Amino acid sequence: MTRQELFSAIQRKRSFLCVGLDTDPSKIPGQLNGDVLAFNKAIIDATRDYCVAYKPNTAFYEALGLDGMRILKDTIDYIGKEHFIIADAKRGDIGNTSGYYASFAFHTLGADAITVAPYMGADSVQPFLNYPGKWAIVLALTSNPGSDDFQHGAVGDAAPLYARVMQRAQTWGSPEQLMFVCGATHPEKFAELRQLAPEHFFLVPGIGAQGGDLDAVCRHGMNAECGLLVNSSRGILYAAPDAGFAEAARAAAHELQQQMEAALKNYLP
Amino acid sequence: MTRQELFSAIQRKRSFLCVGLDTDPSKIPGQLNGDVLAFNKAIIDATRDYCVAYKPNTAFYEALGLDGMRILKDTIDYIGKEHFIIADAKRGDIGNTSGYYASFAFHTLGADAITVAPYMGADSVQPFLNYPGKWAIVLALTSNPGSDDFQHGAVGDAAPLYARVMQRAQTWGSPEQLMFVCGATHPEKFAELRQLAPEHFFLVPGIGAQGGDLDAVCRHGMNAECGLLVNSSRGILYAAPDAGFAEAARAAAHELQQQMEAALKNYLP
Repeated sequence: MTRQELFSAIQRKRSFLCVGLDTDPSKIPGQLNGDVLAFNKAIIDATRDYCVAYKPNTAFYEALGLDGMRILKDTIDYIGKEHFIIADAKRGDIGNTSGYYASFAFHTLGADAITVAPYMGADSVQPFLNYPGKWAIVLALTSNPGSDDFQHGAVGDAAPLYARVMQRAQTWGSPEQLMFVCGATHPEKFAELRQLAPEHFFLVPGIGAQGGDLDAVCRHGMNAECGLLVNSSRGILYAAPDAGFAEAARAAAHELQQQMEAALKNYLP
Repeated sequence: MTRQELFSAIQRKRSFLCVGLDTDPSKIPGQLNGDVLAFNKAIIDATRDYCVAYKPNTAFYEALGLDGMRILKDTIDYIGKEHFIIADAKRGDIGNTSGYYASFAFHTLGADAITVAPYMGADSVQPFLNYPGKWAIVLALTSNPGSDDFQHGAVGDAAPLYARVMQRAQTWGSPEQLMFVCGATHPEKFAELRQLAPEHFFLVPGIGAQGGDLDAVCRHGMNAECGLLVNSSRGILYAAPDAGFAEAARAAAHELQQQMEAALKNYLP
């Protein structure tokens, strides 16, 4: 999916919602007997009108055992081609090895994008950029408490690490193939983040359970092609604990879509 | 496996060799018809006398498709309990998600250790430290060219990023549960790296195809419990391209073991 196609989907749906398919079998309603694929299908059916992207986190599928990747693949196949699909895998290794991860995400799984950890530098990220129409989403400023440990750098540093990652990564790939992960738990940073990468899409986790501020992110972070994919996982997947889970997920996704429609009206330049 | 057990194995075998099982089906001798498990078993049989550890890189098994993790699990089962087994996965995510990766590596696969990327900080690493007898091996200074991009920091920085990672990570876990990846392609750094973490084991890639200097690594990096696991992958796996591959792998592992025996005599304090 190209950047233009993604922006067209955002305009058509008046939404830049990404639904995080981080499915925990212990949180699935009892009636499904722990059937993750059945749960995912119900969530996808309930939410597909209100979102433009899905983001399964590979860890949740590895946790299902040796068949987990098959369940992930079946989930991705069920989503189909209308949505942007992100394998949230946070991979990264020396060059030839990253190439294998890219092949798995893009060919075996059929994802449009994969999240990538930048610690190992250029040759660990570049193999993900060799696939036309596919995307690498590089961790910049993440939403978790541990983002304080290294991403901001130390007192006396020339520039925060996240800024250096964003600047350097732009020499590796264009806004047509590279996005950045910028956590909604740092809303005060979004003006700076947008200045660092004016044209790139940001994948924004941290709304909902993690406490991020959607309006502040949009006010400071939106660009002329929206430039934001805002993720919600737990707030949608587990909106209700029992038989009504799909309806509740649909309502939660709809509510976010409406907030996003308002944000597009207010902040799209 | 405890640190003492690992050091005992090193003393008994007079080796601190780790064999990297980064098996590429296109490089397997034709007689095996691309059977990665059969190749791995032959390599393990050929090398187990000369090494104390095996390190399969998960990317190579993901590249085999949806059944790749089963081949990895069968490989790990075949190695057995006498060797230290490292899942080279370079994982890392927000806390609860890293916990799933830990469960996969330690329970599903049965590895002793997993490599972990530190970019996301404390809560992304700590879930790997909740398993008694299991290890997290944190990327510090990697062996690839991209290690120059961020790990050394920028001009004017208070301290290189790799040093900050090593200092901070020591507040998360003890030398009984935490190791660091330190690439042999930076032999001139090993005195400093050892000073930063006097007691921790280092997993050292970059010997062989990547050009690292084994003697320099040992001279500057060895501590009283050896403190080094030096990896070789391609130099052993593909020592010969045809029917004699296993014998050639054995010879290559034996040669490294003999260099390591000499290094233990020369440098073990």
